[in-house]
Amino acid sequence: MKLLETINEPAQVRKLARSQLVPLAQELRSFLLDSVSKTGGHLSSNLGTVELTVALHYVFNTPHDRIVWDVGHQTYTHKILTGRRERMHTLRQKDGISGFPKRDESEYDTFGTAHSSTSISAALGMAQAAKIKGDPLHAIAVIGDGSMTAGMAFEAMNNAGVQEDVNLLVILNDNDMSISPPVGALNRHLARLMSGQFYAAAKNVGKSVLPGPVLELAKRFEEHAKGMVVPATMFEEFGFNYIGPIDGHDLDSLIPTLQNIKQLKGPQFLHVVTKKGQGYKLAEAEPILYHGTGKFNPAEGIKPATAPAKMTYTEVFGNWLCDMAAHDKRLVGITPAMREGSGMVKFEQKFPARYFDVGIAEQHSVTFGAGLACEGLKPVVAIYSTFLQRAYDQLIHDVALQNLDVTFALDRAGLVGADGATHAGNYDMAFLRCIPNMVIMAASDENECRQMLTTGYHYPGPAAIRYPRGAGAGVAIVPELTSIEIGKGELKRQGKRIAILAFGSMVAPSVAAGDKLDATVANMRFVKPLDVALVKQLAAEHDYLVTVEEGCIMGGAGSAVAEALAAEGIVKPILMLGLPDTFIDHGDPVQLLKGVGLDAAGIAASIEQRFGGTQPPRLAAVS
Amino acid sequence: MKLLETINEPAQVRKLARSQLVPLAQELRSFLLDSVSKTGGHLSSNLGTVELTVALHYVFNTPHDRIVWDVGHQTYTHKILTGRRERMHTLRQKDGISGFPKRDESEYDTFGTAHSSTSISAALGMAQAAKIKGDPLHAIAVIGDGSMTAGMAFEAMNNAGVQEDVNLLVILNDNDMSISPPVGALNRHLARLMSGQFYAAAKNVGKSVLPGPVLELAKRFEEHAKGMVVPATMFEEFGFNYIGPIDGHDLDSLIPTLQNIKQLKGPQFLHVVTKKGQGYKLAEAEPILYHGTGKFNPAEGIKPATAPAKMTYTEVFGNWLCDMAAHDKRLVGITPAMREGSGMVKFEQKFPARYFDVGIAEQHSVTFGAGLACEGLKPVVAIYSTFLQRAYDQLIHDVALQNLDVTFALDRAGLVGADGATHAGNYDMAFLRCIPNMVIMAASDENECRQMLTTGYHYPGPAAIRYPRGAGAGVAIVPELTSIEIGKGELKRQGKRIAILAFGSMVAPSVAAGDKLDATVANMRFVKPLDVALVKQLAAEHDYLVTVEEGCIMGGAGSAVAEALAAEGIVKPILMLGLPDTFIDHGDPVQLLKGVGLDAAGIAASIEQRFGGTQPPRLAAVS
Repeated sequence: MKLLETINEPAQVRKLARSQLVPLAQELRSFLLDSVSKTGGHLSSNLGTVELTVALHYVFNTPHDRIVWDVGHQTYTHKILTGRRERMHTLRQKDGISGFPKRDESEYDTFGTAHSSTSISAALGMAQAAKIKGDPLHAIAVIGDGSMTAGMAFEAMNNAGVQEDVNLLVILNDNDMSISPPVGALNRHLARLMSGQFYAAAKNVGKSVLPGPVLELAKRFEEHAKGMVVPATMFEEFGFNYIGPIDGHDLDSLIPTLQNIKQLKGPQFLHVVTKKGQGYKLAEAEPILYHGTGKFNPAEGIKPATAPAKMTYTEVFGNWLCDMAAHDKRLVGITPAMREGSGMVKFEQKFPARYFDVGIAEQHSVTFGAGLACEGLKPVVAIYSTFLQRAYDQLIHDVALQNLDVTFALDRAGLVGADGATHAGNYDMAFLRCIPNMVIMAASDENECRQMLTTGYHYPGPAAIRYPRGAGAGVAIVPELTSIEIGKGELKRQGKRIAILAFGSMVAPSVAAGDKLDATVANMRFVKPLDVALVKQLAAEHDYLVTVEEGCIMGGAGSAVAEALAAEGIVKPILMLGLPDTFIDHGDPVQLLKGVGLDAAGIAASIEQRFGGTQPPRLAAVS
Repeated sequence: MKLLETINEPAQVRKLARSQLVPLAQELRSFLLDSVSKTGGHLSSNLGTVELTVALHYVFNTPHDRIVWDVGHQTYTHKILTGRRERMHTLRQKDGISGFPKRDESEYDTFGTAHSSTSISAALGMAQAAKIKGDPLHAIAVIGDGSMTAGMAFEAMNNAGVQEDVNLLVILNDNDMSISPPVGALNRHLARLMSGQFYAAAKNVGKSVLPGPVLELAKRFEEHAKGMVVPATMFEEFGFNYIGPIDGHDLDSLIPTLQNIKQLKGPQFLHVVTKKGQGYKLAEAEPILYHGTGKFNPAEGIKPATAPAKMTYTEVFGNWLCDMAAHDKRLVGITPAMREGSGMVKFEQKFPARYFDVGIAEQHSVTFGAGLACEGLKPVVAIYSTFLQRAYDQLIHDVALQNLDVTFALDRAGLVGADGATHAGNYDMAFLRCIPNMVIMAASDENECRQMLTTGYHYPGPAAIRYPRGAGAGVAIVPELTSIEIGKGELKRQGKRIAILAFGSMVAPSVAAGDKLDATVANMRFVKPLDVALVKQLAAEHDYLVTVEEGCIMGGAGSAVAEALAAEGIVKPILMLGLPDTFIDHGDPVQLLKGVGLDAAGIAASIEQRFGGTQPPRLAAVS
């Protein structure tokens, strides 16, 4: 690590001799493997972007030139080169550095990117701002081929193509070719660009695309299997100057190409081919396994868990989906490019004709589901809470307004831990419950999750079931496909004086808090329709009400209870517990919940502070 | 109207002789002009789609074959031919037929479309469902060139291109060429398809695209200015079979082309060129003026208003934007293709270099703004409340999470009248206020709107100003660019016993209700941060609180007040008035508000019913 230890900012990379860059890349790759195997994190994608990152910081004048990394989980090399090498051991841990670019972490992190396909829009904004200000800086978006399938990237490409004289460079980091079947026409287009018939066109490179001295460069390209320059691509239709594809692991291709592009005016598009997991044989062979890892021994690789882990909610969903599909031929499953994350691998294997991976295309996934529902099929859209934000209008305008029978399986609801604020599913209860016709459930354990999925599936309108990231308590799952009554909560514990109305993941800690305080605890189950009868009963039988939810307090389930009380003309002291009105950074989920007072002790303490133990409560005058 | 009077369903169109279709189209055009000039509504786009609509119902077996009309305001001919001719005089009026397709209005309306760019996703869902069910029906999306610029359409195209054997036909209704400058690369691509160099390729039509007997057809195409068949278009890159462009007003082109396409397998793409306003010279000359009209005399055309109308909130915004831009060079204005609707015509003329129409691309508009803000510019995104739903994730992930300085001007907040439920801006207070870092204001009159825009603009983070559709009360506007204090409401009226906390457009009727009841009335101004001090003061000085807002009660501003009371430990009877939890159909805005009890009389009545006049209140036991 001799070379790497001398690099504390990219300016130092730019002082290296060209010949030192290959050894630097080697050191980086070793450092990455060592570091990620100790902290966990994204491995495959980071091994794939070592050379590209080195080349970008070598050629461009960062941070004055702006690099925007799309879905920035591939920025570890970038972090290491921009002064954060010694903090890499804190990656994705509480108070440690983020797994994504973060503007308040470094001036080199120009834009926070964790949801996909934002980079071209953001970089175009930066490039246009520079143009307006007369600043010659370059704005560079580095985007994967998966992210290019999202409509947002298309919107930005379409708009960039007519914004003349902007110093915008879009780099397509094309790395999916080999690992998964193409899910869209764009993939097929890229594959065609890589095929032999286009390779022949590379000889025209000198004339058609790059300035003078590039003819020699073009010959270099030809020495590399995939180096070529192709006219008449889809990207040129958008008004970009297309260059590529070139080998993204070959610094001798990358650097002169980037240096030449730097001289060109107007929107440029560079197609770079990289390999996920590059340089670590195990990851090259199984890039998905090494996409996001826990800790492991690099010499041995990731070992299958010896003891069977507790079932995750994702697995509960995946099993339910297969069982319900076997039971009902009308079921179709839709994922916006999250087959593994959403637990749909088995479903695809068993029911390939009813499985739709539509690409990173949340908007389309929901309206495609609406179209299927119009014809009497029963679509289940599996989507993370945070990504449903991408399809909010489609949920309102296409599904809820028409009261169509689409079931939403909302994984990763609530705090998500290591991924941090960008991925937190904190808002779904607020943004969904204001929409007419919606049924919204929050699962408090694995078996209830399965029951709620069945309930939502049978409900002949739009229904959402939210469940947290990770494993539940290990509750036994009843194999039958049973429903629960819509709009009915259940009493978990009968106590005195205080009634805790708990939602989803907060039921278990609320019961523990209830045990401590001898409070009544209800599992409300439904955020919408709320069990108003139960609310009234609890209000009548208790002095104080407490709502607890793993979601934002503002507009959340607690507010639903307050609205119900107001609508019923019931006046009763109420304490609303939930997530505060701030973005919560990454960290261990248990610690994060404790930090916001949503563990059993925190819930009990908040209640005692407000309503006292056996003392009379602290309340403002009611006059 | 002899022919038209015999048509009560499309099956009757299909029984006509081909020679009768041209006279039918003529009758339809007369009927449309007569009808729309009496009811108001969309004119230009409907005159442009007469022949296409006739041809589709003639060739395809509707309603078994599914037609999905993108942004379906061009479906008047469709409505007339599908049994609603005699209800056209009720168009867009309360209890009358909708200005858009509506599933519960007719079995021929396969999908409710009012927001743009949903049609391909929905039609693909229908086509895929038919494939799964073994039904040979055809699903047809008719989409304008403007709608094609939205990412969602791209997502659907990308996904459709790999769903083999689906009977999907996408018809691009290309009508924007002549009326506005191209705002994106796609427009440029379409223009190129229309240009001479591509026309030459039309001679290959027989060989490359259509089956045998089509060679003769191809010759027909050549007789029409724009008839041709072009290989190697962007749409073919997506895996579609591209046919066109053909003249969309020539039934002799449309019908045989559609009949041929009907025989082809897999995703088909037909490029049809039409002219907005076709057949009515005044509308042809000024299609934007005749896009959405009030009542007018067809013989005279639309006349300029004689008396100056009261200023609309849209104009208040447009004037403010110009004034602030003159004052601050950092201001940039962004619209997702709503230059006229958002009042930005003057701004574009005065500040062309700082004006960005990004196309129908709400997602991109917001993140593009975020990128500009990163570089120290001050973007103002003008967007309808209902369309901000399209950019919800971008607002959260790209703007609010990074606390970037983007100002959102939310026009059409609340009920919108004739456009109906699809365009209602009822949810923004709920879906925005749950997001950390947001400042949200609701304007109660024109001058306050201007002040709030200034306030939001100067606030160095994300701020949204909501204002209703149409004109205000005619309040005088102070020309200076003055701010109000963030998070401070104001007392409008001091009364007794009851305090009404009113937001935005509900301040005026609340003051009138307050006059009647001698209640205190506050203009809360800020949905977020809420003026908690004022809430506490009002709670301390009154027996009852009432919140009033033109937005959904669920999660809305009234809930914010309830949350604040709960957080402060204040127990006080509260009545929340606002929009109920249903989708509200089109109608006269005044009537609609009255219908949900949000006029002065309704507000007073609701308060009296709950809290009595001078009587003691009706309340549940507080025990």
